[in-house]
Amino acid sequence: MERISVETKVLKKNDEYAEENRRVFAQHGIAVANFMSAPGAGKTAILEKTLRALRPELEMAVIEGDLYTTYDADRIAAAGVRAHQITTGTCCHLDAKMIARAITEFPIYETQLLIIENVGNLVCPAEFDLGEDLRVMIYSAVEGAEKPQKYPLMFQTADAILLNKTDLIPYAGVSLEELTANVKKVNPTAPVFPVSCRTGEGIEAWIEWFRRRVTGLRKREAQVGVS
Amino acid sequence: MERISVETKVLKKNDEYAEENRRVFAQHGIAVANFMSAPGAGKTAILEKTLRALRPELEMAVIEGDLYTTYDADRIAAAGVRAHQITTGTCCHLDAKMIARAITEFPIYETQLLIIENVGNLVCPAEFDLGEDLRVMIYSAVEGAEKPQKYPLMFQTADAILLNKTDLIPYAGVSLEELTANVKKVNPTAPVFPVSCRTGEGIEAWIEWFRRRVTGLRKREAQVGVS
Repeated sequence: MERISVETKVLKKNDEYAEENRRVFAQHGIAVANFMSAPGAGKTAILEKTLRALRPELEMAVIEGDLYTTYDADRIAAAGVRAHQITTGTCCHLDAKMIARAITEFPIYETQLLIIENVGNLVCPAEFDLGEDLRVMIYSAVEGAEKPQKYPLMFQTADAILLNKTDLIPYAGVSLEELTANVKKVNPTAPVFPVSCRTGEGIEAWIEWFRRRVTGLRKREAQVGVS
Repeated sequence: MERISVETKVLKKNDEYAEENRRVFAQHGIAVANFMSAPGAGKTAILEKTLRALRPELEMAVIEGDLYTTYDADRIAAAGVRAHQITTGTCCHLDAKMIARAITEFPIYETQLLIIENVGNLVCPAEFDLGEDLRVMIYSAVEGAEKPQKYPLMFQTADAILLNKTDLIPYAGVSLEELTANVKKVNPTAPVFPVSCRTGEGIEAWIEWFRRRVTGLRKREAQVGVS
């Protein structure tokens, strides 16, 4: 009981910060995507490919959530995109207040697309609205076909779901059909992209979808900014 | 600041319950192991193999932590071992109070070895002492070689570290040598067992080590119980 009331208070406070973040993002016409996954699902690898593809078209920035290291922020910077690191210490997710603080330290007003790479965790990040427009979930297909039922919240709240490491599927004894069906059971509407960062399979389809969604968001946000 | 003080309070309360759990376990001569991993690392599969190997020798019980489903508890029951399910809802880890409550509902006093299978999460479970004697960490080798540095706490606090899915290593572009070296950097003392649940490789060495540790614990706890 005590635990639930602490949680509820934390989440209510978070939602207030998220709303304020959303207002700031909309005002400046910034589309914001929150990339989430379990550790080791290939979030940063997908992000690198996405950034390299969209860099000629969009002014981008990345906020990196990591417990201790700056490995991921370094990889993003190497891909030629400005990156700001939030070191969360023992905290297993980003929250809206951390984002609110980050955007005061890291100027994003020239940015058209801000990508937030969350801490690798299949559970908690999904509970915290950061003020983003879009949630992108990356799932490693070799983690098994039953996880959408075991860890439903992130799958349910995602706007797009990438099933990564499809190149390992033949060796892992996982059925892509069963996994996809299980994803669809918890989230019937989000598009599902089977991809392999290693072979490049499916990456183009994902980037094409993401490009279209970001363009749509920027149009909408420009109108909000004007009105 | 506020967040940290809430966390500190939660962890302090947790440690009180953990101490009480430890006292109860020792009093009854029960060795307790806490199995932790990220989602999909093969925790339940390793547990099934371990239970089947030790069932002829030890009276065992399992407490299963899961967000929503009873899939894992069903698998344990199918392996012929009594299982009690804790459904954590949105909570991404087990805490000592949940265990304290579970052992009032699920009689464990005839048990010699209690295994607690934590919620699949590479971050939070490591922060919560449950009153266990032994922490066993299962890591999927295909999640990458750099994770011990990125998510150090679980690696640091583990008494044994299993590197699972070694059969996928040739396809995943991960170096087992590099991963092992990175594990050793954050935890130089815990034994590291490369295993494959699919091929059975390394499982016997792990079970032999675990058997010896559990026997040692039970001897020690029997003395505590007597004194």
